[in-house]
Amino acid sequence: MADIRIAIVGYGNLGKSVEKLIKAQPDMTLAGIFSRRETLDTDAAVWPVAEFADYRDQFDVAVLCLGSATDIPEQAPEFIRHANTVDTYDNHRDVPRHRAQMDEIAKENGTVAVVSTGWDPGMFSLNRTMAQAILPGAAQHTFWGPGLSQGHSDALRRIPGVHKAVQYTIPSPDALDAARKGEAGQLTGKDAHLRRCFVVADEADHERIENEIRTMPDYFVGYQVEVNFVDEATFDAEHTGMPHGGHVVTAGDTGGYTETIEYTLELDRNPDFTAAVALAYSRAAHRITEPGAYTVLEVAPYLISPDSLDDLIARDV
Amino acid sequence: MADIRIAIVGYGNLGKSVEKLIKAQPDMTLAGIFSRRETLDTDAAVWPVAEFADYRDQFDVAVLCLGSATDIPEQAPEFIRHANTVDTYDNHRDVPRHRAQMDEIAKENGTVAVVSTGWDPGMFSLNRTMAQAILPGAAQHTFWGPGLSQGHSDALRRIPGVHKAVQYTIPSPDALDAARKGEAGQLTGKDAHLRRCFVVADEADHERIENEIRTMPDYFVGYQVEVNFVDEATFDAEHTGMPHGGHVVTAGDTGGYTETIEYTLELDRNPDFTAAVALAYSRAAHRITEPGAYTVLEVAPYLISPDSLDDLIARDV
Repeated sequence: MADIRIAIVGYGNLGKSVEKLIKAQPDMTLAGIFSRRETLDTDAAVWPVAEFADYRDQFDVAVLCLGSATDIPEQAPEFIRHANTVDTYDNHRDVPRHRAQMDEIAKENGTVAVVSTGWDPGMFSLNRTMAQAILPGAAQHTFWGPGLSQGHSDALRRIPGVHKAVQYTIPSPDALDAARKGEAGQLTGKDAHLRRCFVVADEADHERIENEIRTMPDYFVGYQVEVNFVDEATFDAEHTGMPHGGHVVTAGDTGGYTETIEYTLELDRNPDFTAAVALAYSRAAHRITEPGAYTVLEVAPYLISPDSLDDLIARDV
Repeated sequence: MADIRIAIVGYGNLGKSVEKLIKAQPDMTLAGIFSRRETLDTDAAVWPVAEFADYRDQFDVAVLCLGSATDIPEQAPEFIRHANTVDTYDNHRDVPRHRAQMDEIAKENGTVAVVSTGWDPGMFSLNRTMAQAILPGAAQHTFWGPGLSQGHSDALRRIPGVHKAVQYTIPSPDALDAARKGEAGQLTGKDAHLRRCFVVADEADHERIENEIRTMPDYFVGYQVEVNFVDEATFDAEHTGMPHGGHVVTAGDTGGYTETIEYTLELDRNPDFTAAVALAYSRAAHRITEPGAYTVLEVAPYLISPDSLDDLIARDV
C-alpha cells in the first residue's frame, strides 16, 4: 500500500516535531511544508501557504501546526475546503463550535477533519469520556504536570530584575493520592497543583522578587508556590526543555468497592507527543470514508494504527 | 429515550456484578436473567437459558457472563443468532477465531456482538493498540496486579497442611520503573512480577510448606516469592476480597526524548470492573447499526457513554 502523504502547515515547534516524527512512521512520507516564509531550514519541499489549494493533489492529509489563539479558527475552515486536515485546536470551550463549522464545510467538500487531537484535548479527553462511561457517576480529576507553563514563566520574566525564569506546574501529591481513593471531593486547580519556580537573578533582588511572585494576583496568589533561585549555568543545563504530562484519575464506587482508572503521561518533550498523536490521527483522517469533522471520541481506535486490524486483534487483544 | 433492556446470561460472580451495576446506569434496566437453574436468589425475572430465543423481544442486549474455557466458545455462537451480545471472552489467542465466527453469524442474522470486553482483554487491549499507534516502535509492557491469582491460590491450597491460602501477583517495582523509562528490555513474566502468598497453617508445618511453595515447578520456581503465614482471623479479615489491576506501560523515543504513556487500573473487586466495562460496551452493541462482531478496537469511544456526543464534546474534550 502506498504511504500516506502528509503536508505540514506551519513550521514552529509543533511543525518541526511532526517533520521529525514522520520519519519514524512505517506508512507515511512528508510531502511538503506550507509556510508564509519562502525558505525554511529543511530538506523538505516548501510550499506557499497562500497556494494551499493548488497543491491538494500532492498530499493526503494536512497537519495544521498553527496556533489556537487565532490561526486555527481563522484558517482551518479554509484548508478543509480543499483537503483532509488534522488539528490540535486546544481552546476547550470553543471545540463544539469549531467541530460544527469544520463538519459543515467538510461535508460540502467531501473532506475529513479530525479536530482537537493532541493530549489535552485529545488523549485526556478520550480517557475522561471512557472512564466516566465505564464508571458512571465516578469522581474524576485531571492533573497537569510536572510541566512547563509558558504563561506563568512569562509572568515571572516580567518582574524587574529577573534574568531568566521558568515555572513548572506540578500535581499536588496529596491531592493525587486522594483522587485515586475517590476522596478528593471538589478539587480546585489551586488545591490540586503547586507552582515550582526556578529564577536567575542577582542575589540582592531575591527577597523582593520572591515577594513579588508570591503576591502576584491570578498567577500565584492562593497557590502553593516554591521559589528556587539558581545560577545561570544550572538554569541553562536543567531548565530549557519542554517537559509536560499529567494524570486523568477516575475513581468509581461499585457498591462499597473502589475501582480506579488512571491515565498518565510523562513527556520529555511536549510538542513531540502532541505531534505524535496528531500524526496517528492523520491515519484516521486518511481512512475515514464519510466526509465530516470528527473528535477523537468519534474515531474507532484501530483507525489510528499503522497495523492491520487482524494483526492488532492477534497481537493486542 | 427508552432504557436499554439488558439480559444477563449466567449468574456467577460476573453475572451478579452486572445485576448490581445495572442499577447505577442512567439508561439501562435489567430485563431478566437466563440460567440453567429454575430459581435464583434475585428479585429479577429468571428465564430458562434453553429458551433464550423465545425471549428475544424482551431485551436489547444479552451480557454473556459465562466461562471462557468452554461456555463462551460453545454457546455464544448460538446466542448471537437471536440477539445482540456482549462477552468477556478472555482466551487471548483464540479471540481472532471467536470474533470471525461471531461476525459471520451476526451478519447472517442482523445482530451485533461486542467480543472480549472487560479489562484484559478489553481496556488494556485498547491502550496497547493506541499507545503503539502513537509511538510506533515503542517499548511496551503489561504488568498485572496487585491481584489475586486464582490458579496460584489453588496450587497453594493443594499443599498438605495448608488450611487457607491466597496468592497475589504483584508487579516488580524495579521492572515497572525500568519500563517507564523505556529501559526494561525484553522482560519476561518472571522478571516483571513477584508472587506474594498468605497462608494459614499449623506452625509445625511452616518450614516444610514454605519449601514446597518455593520449589513448586511452573507456579513458583524462578519467581521472586514472598511467603507470609498469618492466623485465620487475619486471613478472613484481609484476604477474602477479589482485588486486581495492572499497568500498560509504553515508553517511546522521539529522537533522544522519552515519552511515556501509562494506563493503570486499581480494582477493589475484579468482577465488578469487568462487569462495568461489559455494560458500557452493551450500549455500543445496542447503538451500532451495522451487523457483525466488534472488538473494543473497532468501537468509537463515544458509543459506550450514556451521554450524548454533544454533551461529551462540551464536557470532556
